[in-house]
Amino acid sequence: MNKQQLIEQIRRKKSFLCVGLDTDIYKIPQHLAKSDDAIFEFNRAIIDATAPYCVAYKPNLAFYEYFGGESWTSLEKTVDYIRNKYPEMFVIADAKRGDIGNTSAMYARAFFHEMNVDALTVAPYMGEDSIKPFLQYPDKWVILLALTSNQGAFDFQLVEDKAGVPLYQRVLERSKQWGNEEQLMYVVGATKAEMLADVRRIVPHSFLLVPGIGAQGGSLSEVCKYGLTDECGLLVNNSRAIIYADSSERFAEVAGAKAKEMAAQMANELSKINFK
Amino acid sequence: MNKQQLIEQIRRKKSFLCVGLDTDIYKIPQHLAKSDDAIFEFNRAIIDATAPYCVAYKPNLAFYEYFGGESWTSLEKTVDYIRNKYPEMFVIADAKRGDIGNTSAMYARAFFHEMNVDALTVAPYMGEDSIKPFLQYPDKWVILLALTSNQGAFDFQLVEDKAGVPLYQRVLERSKQWGNEEQLMYVVGATKAEMLADVRRIVPHSFLLVPGIGAQGGSLSEVCKYGLTDECGLLVNNSRAIIYADSSERFAEVAGAKAKEMAAQMANELSKINFK
Repeated sequence: MNKQQLIEQIRRKKSFLCVGLDTDIYKIPQHLAKSDDAIFEFNRAIIDATAPYCVAYKPNLAFYEYFGGESWTSLEKTVDYIRNKYPEMFVIADAKRGDIGNTSAMYARAFFHEMNVDALTVAPYMGEDSIKPFLQYPDKWVILLALTSNQGAFDFQLVEDKAGVPLYQRVLERSKQWGNEEQLMYVVGATKAEMLADVRRIVPHSFLLVPGIGAQGGSLSEVCKYGLTDECGLLVNNSRAIIYADSSERFAEVAGAKAKEMAAQMANELSKINFK
Repeated sequence: MNKQQLIEQIRRKKSFLCVGLDTDIYKIPQHLAKSDDAIFEFNRAIIDATAPYCVAYKPNLAFYEYFGGESWTSLEKTVDYIRNKYPEMFVIADAKRGDIGNTSAMYARAFFHEMNVDALTVAPYMGEDSIKPFLQYPDKWVILLALTSNQGAFDFQLVEDKAGVPLYQRVLERSKQWGNEEQLMYVVGATKAEMLADVRRIVPHSFLLVPGIGAQGGSLSEVCKYGLTDECGLLVNNSRAIIYADSSERFAEVAGAKAKEMAAQMANELSKINFK
């Protein structure tokens, strides 16, 4: 999917919500546990309930490696289900990969060619040749970790070099030499919303994937204040507060209602900047 | 496996060779292609041929995600095969994972509990809470990326902070607050062997996993000169130069001979420091 198609979808739905599919077998409702593929059944119900209110889904790979080959199959079925029923959706594999060139090339083929997701999260530590293989696929995206939502972000990402530039800003700057805003997005945590102003100085037109709203404590209005652009420029992720909003047989309905509520807040933020 | 058991194995075999199982379906010998599980058959033959000469195997996860669930099963079969037939082996999942705490906890369970490997490579960018969940498993290891063997290492790992400390050294220093040398190893590329002296100043007794010998151009004797400790302290990985040394029906025999040759060089290096 290209940038224009993503923006069109945001415009149509008045939402920039990404639903994180962190589907933990130990947290899904009891009545699904008997199913042959409980993870997929859970995802399918969540997807059908939330699709009108979101523009992206983000399965978190950790939750699909847990049972090895079997849970990978649940992931593949989930991606296929989205692809077939909701072809307008932007699908992000949250995998945080990154390795030497020939290995990154394998990961790129696995995710972009075989699994056919739109985007992959990638860690920057290994530098240019670990990222470039992912940038060879037209209309596929690298979502590079810049400033993450967790406490550990302070250990390295905020360390300043001799010129006073924190590492995450160096990552942003350097990455602009590797690809453009039609193929690169960045992870910037909602828990550090005020730093979005610094991020926007470096990448004014890039899309940002923003985790950390809800369970991790970030604020949507703060994120919008500093992060929204005239093309929207944000995908705000929520996982746990939506998919585990309810653990009864009504879980999907409640998840849908929660997504609808978030989308309404997003529509309000978009109207403030007159995004139509 | 604990540190003492690893050292014992090195002592017995006079080798600190790690064989990287970067098993690419497109590179394995033609005559195996007809097999139901060509990747596993290839690995089994390579393992049987090289086991006398190495102390560790390192499957590279990218090569087992390529065909999704099916190739994950090949990985699980490979790990089980090693566990059952060569229980003395140290098994490293080269996955370069790392995410927020609850996600890292899932990866840790997947690799240490379900798959039962000894060690996992982890990327440091997200800091302490992305690493700690991996350190909760007795006799399991985190192998933290410090200074990688690729060109891209220069982009961020060697950037100096205000005090002149390069990022990779900060990673080493900081990690010592999270775990000890009985649970933490570090990736340090052979292509930057002279920097091993700096690494050793910070982590004098830790094991280092050293890639980059062979295909990437690093030198074993240089690595040993700066990296060997009185407990050996090194695992030197080789993937392509062993597993793809020959593409005929004799591939495993040739791989075994190549591993034997490398082990002999390692025995020679160990004898130089009087390691017995």
